[in-house]
Amino acid sequence: MGASLSLTIRAKGFPCKTTGIVRTEKSKTKGLELKSADIILTEEEFLQNPNWNEFDLVVFSLPIHLTCEKILAFPENYCGVITDLASAKKDIIEIVEKKFQTTHSYYSSHPMAGSEQTGLEFAKPNLFEGKLCILTKPKQVSSVAIEKLELFWKQLDTSKIEMNSIEHDQILAYLSHSPHILSSILVNWAYENPIVQNKINHSDTPLTGGGFRDMTRIAGSNPEMWDAIISANKQNIIDSLEGFKSHIDSILKVLNDENTKSEFWNQYFTKSKSNRANILKLKE
Amino acid sequence: MGASLSLTIRAKGFPCKTTGIVRTEKSKTKGLELKSADIILTEEEFLQNPNWNEFDLVVFSLPIHLTCEKILAFPENYCGVITDLASAKKDIIEIVEKKFQTTHSYYSSHPMAGSEQTGLEFAKPNLFEGKLCILTKPKQVSSVAIEKLELFWKQLDTSKIEMNSIEHDQILAYLSHSPHILSSILVNWAYENPIVQNKINHSDTPLTGGGFRDMTRIAGSNPEMWDAIISANKQNIIDSLEGFKSHIDSILKVLNDENTKSEFWNQYFTKSKSNRANILKLKE
Repeated sequence: MGASLSLTIRAKGFPCKTTGIVRTEKSKTKGLELKSADIILTEEEFLQNPNWNEFDLVVFSLPIHLTCEKILAFPENYCGVITDLASAKKDIIEIVEKKFQTTHSYYSSHPMAGSEQTGLEFAKPNLFEGKLCILTKPKQVSSVAIEKLELFWKQLDTSKIEMNSIEHDQILAYLSHSPHILSSILVNWAYENPIVQNKINHSDTPLTGGGFRDMTRIAGSNPEMWDAIISANKQNIIDSLEGFKSHIDSILKVLNDENTKSEFWNQYFTKSKSNRANILKLKE
Repeated sequence: MGASLSLTIRAKGFPCKTTGIVRTEKSKTKGLELKSADIILTEEEFLQNPNWNEFDLVVFSLPIHLTCEKILAFPENYCGVITDLASAKKDIIEIVEKKFQTTHSYYSSHPMAGSEQTGLEFAKPNLFEGKLCILTKPKQVSSVAIEKLELFWKQLDTSKIEMNSIEHDQILAYLSHSPHILSSILVNWAYENPIVQNKINHSDTPLTGGGFRDMTRIAGSNPEMWDAIISANKQNIIDSLEGFKSHIDSILKVLNDENTKSEFWNQYFTKSKSNRANILKLKE
């Protein structure tokens, strides 16, 4: 997502340069080839002689636990704005509030954009267009940093909503984290059934329609990132998955009840269609 | 799906005419406007003076219980081929075998194509292209009917696989029917959480990313059709949903275990990515 951000900034012609700091030589080579940023350095190269105050904005686009490490090690005299793109906020906000005990310029971002594909080659200059960016304020963040970062995301054509880290992580468990796990369960549950697996393995063409394909699109994407998200939001994920099981139980009760009226399903699916329209802000 | 079939036949320029029999005057008017078929009649009009032997192929594109009714009422002296497009096969094959006790020409089809949108206006002339058609033989179906129907689907650029009705319904519970229910549960589970609902209702922009949108695309589509599918494949759906719950339980056990190693998730997501590639026949 860091590379998409860099491509977007460059595509918009902002009067600035982007520097991409990558973790490996391989990523550097790829980034240079793909022109992912104006300057690309490995972390090792960058840390040999870092001049942080060259940068107006520092964006961490890293798994959460690594973002937390970088925050702890961050120079306290940095004058620009700092943010991250992390999908769970509690740990990050805790670390920021521990690290910066007076006014600071760290303001956390979660743009609701992404892809199941990992790697610089999948970066897109229009990834953020029309998307929502959830912003989370740590205590003592300066009003200047708030203003600058909100303007930045606005110039990238995102709209914004503000949430504290507790709300953010509860809501994201339902709208992103647990769905990601459920999508992966769906794949494994289907393929591990011996009758299903046997037929699949004896067919050259997929046995599935578009529904199954779409429901599992995000299954298994970016294991490293998701490992970190799950660790960082474990209790909300547990609670929401327990809730999902209760929903299945209610459905099983209906299926097992000989007296269920056929209108039940009509009502249930009609309700889910309408709830989906509310969630996705669709016009029905 | 009947209208898509008619449009496909016409787009391919087959030397034949298509007749669409619809249930309501409203559908007839819409079908005439959209030119969904060469001839469009309401069922009432058609049944006033039906000459079945005008047709080489009769295709039932109806909810399962209605398909079963039509099969029971079907004239025994019909000379062409008969099929349906139903998503569950046990009831249909039972009715066919009860109705036709000597050689007959009913051969059941399930093209793995469709859309979450219902109505003649969503019919597409390329809906079947490259898709799989699952074919299910009732006892005593003639080899001529088999040959003709298989050629028909081949000319529509579908590939085929054969399954008996028991296998078909077991497999479809995993790859289609229960996923449909799970997609609807996902929507209701998320929206019925008060914290989630409150934030959604206070935001103009959707709080969800593409993952949630795609996982719920099929939620609530065509309630009438799905009511019939669920009734027709109830036990397989119950068994598979019980299995899905067990998968969630295994995941909850891992989440609740303080000693879970971080490699677990990496392995789990890597496995689901690989299983998905097997199911969808993707090259990894």
